[in-house]
Amino acid sequence: MKVTKKFTLPESEIPTQWYNIVADMPNKPQPLLHPGTRKPIKAEDMEGLFAKELAKQEFSTERWHEIPEDVRTLYKIYRPSPLVRASGLEKALNTPAKIYFKNESVSPVGSHKLNTAIAQCYYNAEQGITHLTTETGAGQWGSAMAVAARHFKVGLDVFMVKNSYNTKPYRKIVMRTYGANVHAVPSPDTEYGRAVLAKDPTCLGSLGMAISEAVEMAVHSDNARYTLGSVLNHVLLHQTVIGLEAEKQMEMTGDYPDKVIACFGGGSNFSGISFPFLRHNFLDGKKTRFMAAEPAACPKLSCGKFEYDFGDTEGLTPLIPMYTLGHDFQPAQIHAAGLRYHGGGQIVSQLKKDGLIESYPIDQRETFAAGITFAQSEGIIPAPESTHAIALVIREALKDKAEGRDETILFNLSGHGLLDMAAYEQYMDGKL
Amino acid sequence: MKVTKKFTLPESEIPTQWYNIVADMPNKPQPLLHPGTRKPIKAEDMEGLFAKELAKQEFSTERWHEIPEDVRTLYKIYRPSPLVRASGLEKALNTPAKIYFKNESVSPVGSHKLNTAIAQCYYNAEQGITHLTTETGAGQWGSAMAVAARHFKVGLDVFMVKNSYNTKPYRKIVMRTYGANVHAVPSPDTEYGRAVLAKDPTCLGSLGMAISEAVEMAVHSDNARYTLGSVLNHVLLHQTVIGLEAEKQMEMTGDYPDKVIACFGGGSNFSGISFPFLRHNFLDGKKTRFMAAEPAACPKLSCGKFEYDFGDTEGLTPLIPMYTLGHDFQPAQIHAAGLRYHGGGQIVSQLKKDGLIESYPIDQRETFAAGITFAQSEGIIPAPESTHAIALVIREALKDKAEGRDETILFNLSGHGLLDMAAYEQYMDGKL
Repeated sequence: MKVTKKFTLPESEIPTQWYNIVADMPNKPQPLLHPGTRKPIKAEDMEGLFAKELAKQEFSTERWHEIPEDVRTLYKIYRPSPLVRASGLEKALNTPAKIYFKNESVSPVGSHKLNTAIAQCYYNAEQGITHLTTETGAGQWGSAMAVAARHFKVGLDVFMVKNSYNTKPYRKIVMRTYGANVHAVPSPDTEYGRAVLAKDPTCLGSLGMAISEAVEMAVHSDNARYTLGSVLNHVLLHQTVIGLEAEKQMEMTGDYPDKVIACFGGGSNFSGISFPFLRHNFLDGKKTRFMAAEPAACPKLSCGKFEYDFGDTEGLTPLIPMYTLGHDFQPAQIHAAGLRYHGGGQIVSQLKKDGLIESYPIDQRETFAAGITFAQSEGIIPAPESTHAIALVIREALKDKAEGRDETILFNLSGHGLLDMAAYEQYMDGKL
Repeated sequence: MKVTKKFTLPESEIPTQWYNIVADMPNKPQPLLHPGTRKPIKAEDMEGLFAKELAKQEFSTERWHEIPEDVRTLYKIYRPSPLVRASGLEKALNTPAKIYFKNESVSPVGSHKLNTAIAQCYYNAEQGITHLTTETGAGQWGSAMAVAARHFKVGLDVFMVKNSYNTKPYRKIVMRTYGANVHAVPSPDTEYGRAVLAKDPTCLGSLGMAISEAVEMAVHSDNARYTLGSVLNHVLLHQTVIGLEAEKQMEMTGDYPDKVIACFGGGSNFSGISFPFLRHNFLDGKKTRFMAAEPAACPKLSCGKFEYDFGDTEGLTPLIPMYTLGHDFQPAQIHAAGLRYHGGGQIVSQLKKDGLIESYPIDQRETFAAGITFAQSEGIIPAPESTHAIALVIREALKDKAEGRDETILFNLSGHGLLDMAAYEQYMDGKL
C-alpha cells in the first residue's frame, strides 16, 4: 500500500483570516481585572504596553480577523506548513491508528512562534512603533521576534534568562545574526536588573525577571512597546493559521481527527491547532477530543486551581481568570523550557473548566523516549516541548492497538530540537 | 506587484530517475587507475569496499538510472524541496536580477546529504549488507547516514574528526539520537587509530585519518561496506534529484537560469543542481553558465593542477584524474568544513578542463557577510558552506545592478547553519 506522506497546500491557501474562538464559546472567558481596583480592564488600558490593534484583538469577540496582506506575504517563507502522515511512527508502534502531524518545525527559526511574531511586529510597525522589547526563556520566541522585527525594520531588545543565555549559546547567536540586541537577565541595562545585580551579582535570572526588564525598557523608551509569545488571546488568535491549514489538509486525507493533541506551555501551539477543529464540535456536532500534553513538573491544567492570578512572577500584570499553580510557582529545570509557565490563560482555562478540553501530565523521561522513537521512525528530531505531544500520541496509539481501534490522531509538531541536543544527550546518558 | 515566494511540487513529481551526465559529456572522464599497476580499474575492483550496485553506477555511462521505489518513499519525508524566489534578497540588494534558490535545508538533517545517504543505505541493505562505516568532518554527512541507516536497519559506525567531535558536540548527539555509533578520530577502535594514538595521544585527527579508520573497519568486519558522501560519480548521480526538480520548478516560474551557482567541496551539491541544466546546454543549445563557489583556503578548481592524484591523504584509493591541490594539502581550518577537500573529482574536473563550468575562490569573511545579509532578508541562516554560493550570487546580482541587467540566477542552498552558530559569532565578533 502506498501512503501519501505529505499533504501540501499552495501559497494561495494560506488563510486570509484568523479564527477567534471566543465568538463560539458556550461560556465566554471571565474578564481580566485591574490588580489595584479589581475592576474589568479594557483594550485602552493595555495600549501603553501593546500595539493598539493587538490590544483590540485581545478583547475581541468577532469570529474572524482579516490577516493583513504583508503578514501573509511573510508567512510565505514557510507556510503553508505540511501535514504529514506519520507512517514511520505507525509502523514502529504497529498500531492501527492513523497518525498525522502538522509540521511547524519547517519555519526558519524552527518553531510555530513566527506565526504571531510576524503579526505582532507588523501591527507595531504599522502604528509607527520603532522599538520592541520581549523576554525569552529557551530562545525560540526571541529568535522568531528577531526575524520579524528585522523584516519590519523595528529595533528589538530581547531579555534572555541568564541561565539559558549561558547554557544555550546558539539561540543567542541566532538572535544576534538576525540583528537583535540580546541581554542576559538580570542585566545592567535596566533599573530593575541593576537592583537585582546589586543584591546578587551571580544571579542566573528567571522568566519573571526577564518580563520585568523587558516591560521596564518598553515603558521607559520612546515609541516602544512590549510583546509576548503566548498566553494572551491575540497570540492564540494568530496561531490559528496552524489549525485552519490543517483543516483543509485533513480533508485531502479523507480522514477527520478523533483526537487533536499538542503540548501545553502558555497555550499558543495547542490553541493554534485545536481551536479551528473545536469550532466544528460547537457548530457541526463533531466529537473530536482535544488533549493537552503538560510537563509533570508544571501541570497547571491538570493540577492547578481555577482562580484569578497574575501573569507574571512580580505581580505587575492584570489578574487573569485561569488554572494556575500560583504566580510564584517555580517549576523544576526541565528541558522543555517553553512549557515552564504557571498558568493556562483566559480562554483555554475556561474551555478546560467547561470540560471541552482535557490535559495529561507527562514525565520528561517518557517524553524524551518518545522523541527518540519519533526521530528514528520519522527522521525529525523534535523539540523537548513537542516530545510531550508525541508521548501522549504514543500512549493513545498503543491503546488503539490494544483495543484494535483505527482512530485518527492529529498532533502538532511545534518545533525541531536541533538546538536542544544537550538535553537529548543527558537523557541518553541516563542523567535525567 | 505580488511575487510568488515558493514553487512547490507534489510528491508525485519526485523524479523517478537520476541523471548521469557522463552519457552526454563531449569528452568522457579519463579512467580511474589502480595505484599499483596504474591500469584502469573496473566496477568489480570496488565491490569489496562499496555495494555492488553503487560500484556499477560509479562506472556507468547510461543516461538515466531508475530510482528504487523504497528510496522515493523515503525522499517523501522532505522532497520535493521548494524552489524559492529570493525576493527579500533582491530587495536588499536593489538588483534587477531575478534570484531563485533551491532549498535543500528543509531535509530533517538540514542538508542535501540525505539524497545520497538514502540511496547508498538502500543498495547496501538490498545486497544484504548489515553494517556500514563512513567518516564525517563537520557531521552533516554522518547525520544523513545515521537517519538512512536506521531506516534500512543497517548498523552504522561514523568516524568523526576529533577536532569537530569536540567543538561541534551537537552533530555528534544528532547521530547518536538516530542510533549511530560515533568514534572520535583517532580512535582506539581500529589498528590504524591505535597506532596514531600511540605516537601522539593528543592528536585531533584529520579527514584522511577518519577515512583510513572507516575503511579499515569496513574491510575487517563481516558483511560490512564503506560509504562516501561526495566526490564519487554515484554520489553525484544521486544528487541530480535537486536539479531535476528545479528544472520543473523553473518552468513554473516562467524564467530559465542564465547562471547556476553552488558551493564546491567535493562536488555533490554543485553537480546535483547543475548537471540537469548543463544537459540542456549540451542537447538544446542553452547558454547557461555554471559557477562553482570555492573557499579561497581550498581552491582546487581555480588554482589546482589537473593530474592523477589520490582521493585520500594516505594514498589508499585509486588514482583519480582531477584538479587537485595535492592529496597531502592541508587547508586552513575554515568553518565550511564541508569544502575542505583537496580534489575536484573525475567528472567535474573534466567539465572544468573543457571550459564547461567556471569556479571562483571566495574568502570566508565575504561569505559570512553574505550569510548574514541572506539571513536578514530571507529569514534562513545558511550553512557556512552555502554562504559561499550566496556570496557569489551577491557579486553577480550587484554586477547586474551596475549594468542594468535582469538576468535569472539560480543557486542551491545546500543546508542551514543552525548547528554552526559558533562560526557566525566569531565572524560578528571580528575574530575571523
